[in-house]
Amino acid sequence: MDVSSIKALTFDVFGTVVDWRTTIIAEGEEIGKAKGLTIDWARFADTWRAGYFSSMDLVRSKKLPWTKIDTLHRMVLDNLLIEFGIAGLSEAEKYRLNLVWHRLKPWPDAIPGLNRLRTRYIIATLSNGNMALLTNMAKNAGLPWDCILSAELAKRYKPDPEAYLMAADLLGLRTDQIMHVAAHKADLKAAHGQGMKTAFVPRPLEYGPTREVETTPEPWIDLFATDFEDLATKLGT
Amino acid sequence: MDVSSIKALTFDVFGTVVDWRTTIIAEGEEIGKAKGLTIDWARFADTWRAGYFSSMDLVRSKKLPWTKIDTLHRMVLDNLLIEFGIAGLSEAEKYRLNLVWHRLKPWPDAIPGLNRLRTRYIIATLSNGNMALLTNMAKNAGLPWDCILSAELAKRYKPDPEAYLMAADLLGLRTDQIMHVAAHKADLKAAHGQGMKTAFVPRPLEYGPTREVETTPEPWIDLFATDFEDLATKLGT
Repeated sequence: MDVSSIKALTFDVFGTVVDWRTTIIAEGEEIGKAKGLTIDWARFADTWRAGYFSSMDLVRSKKLPWTKIDTLHRMVLDNLLIEFGIAGLSEAEKYRLNLVWHRLKPWPDAIPGLNRLRTRYIIATLSNGNMALLTNMAKNAGLPWDCILSAELAKRYKPDPEAYLMAADLLGLRTDQIMHVAAHKADLKAAHGQGMKTAFVPRPLEYGPTREVETTPEPWIDLFATDFEDLATKLGT
Repeated sequence: MDVSSIKALTFDVFGTVVDWRTTIIAEGEEIGKAKGLTIDWARFADTWRAGYFSSMDLVRSKKLPWTKIDTLHRMVLDNLLIEFGIAGLSEAEKYRLNLVWHRLKPWPDAIPGLNRLRTRYIIATLSNGNMALLTNMAKNAGLPWDCILSAELAKRYKPDPEAYLMAADLLGLRTDQIMHVAAHKADLKAAHGQGMKTAFVPRPLEYGPTREVETTPEPWIDLFATDFEDLATKLGT
């Protein structure tokens, strides 16, 4: 494809840039050791992530007013602690555990790939994570964003169109000057619907080693890359 | 002062971080040479900056609807070109000149100071410049922001309270966990009014070598620093 008109790349974050599942399992296991708990932390992580989608859908369908992801994560966590029988955490410990999403670790190719991409393009997040979460995550992990953009700035969660249009407006670009990068087809389909170019970077391990990832081509996917280094090469950096 | 409760520093940008006057004069002189024009570029820069304040006040007083700084700068520039008798610029040249604000150069101490400060604090812009302007400026100049915040996100220009409250909300902090840094007293007074801590970094050369800068202490200034390196030292980094 002709990449000469692309000025900026926007990135989905959870799953695309960072490996939420491995980070949550690792922190869970530390807590388990400290508290003497035997928990299936992989199932805990997957259930937390699933709860995030359900609670976000309540906001998207206006059954909940605008609510930041940090707050949605905490609502889900409070239920999870009961469901998994995790007792004995102080409020400070729960608060800290909820912020594990601020400490997610990038996939190994993410930072080298982003450093190459930013030599030519503006690179920005376009995530449903709130601004504080994304800012803290970038600082913790060393993610070299030029700019942090969040659905919070539109008060509309992806895949609602307003989230993508907000990014173009704030970057001062037309949507067709932006390529959205994600490991999730629904996100790319919605970005394409607003005129953005799209790059699909499947993350086969996002949900662990047993979940098959669907990677068939689609008319609304402009570019397919195996990871961020491959993306950097395909985008001429 | 006790700095232990400070989590983030927000920075005014035009004049505080970057030297708008010198950059505009330098780019003006290049244009003058190329076009064979004899213009007082220092007066041109000062008049542009003054026009920015007047046009922003039209937005603050609701005589103009919300308008980005890039657009306000262009409105002022179009008048300036007539006033200074600068003819013969193509639309592409005017467009490029207007974006000189995206290319402003930092004061020499700014980047070394910010790099020290960001080892301990979240550092973010809190500027009336629009997001695209601040993002491009950071990329051009290598300013190491953790996060770019703009009055554009509140659609209210500083010193309106909403601009400061927006920063605290998006950073997920109380205003008293944030220190606002500026070379302009009115900005600090307004930040203090919303509960922020304040640091005054006078920039005696902002308006050139002949304009005296008023640096008397004020009850709403918490910290006085001669430059960003001095600020980094005083904030324990």
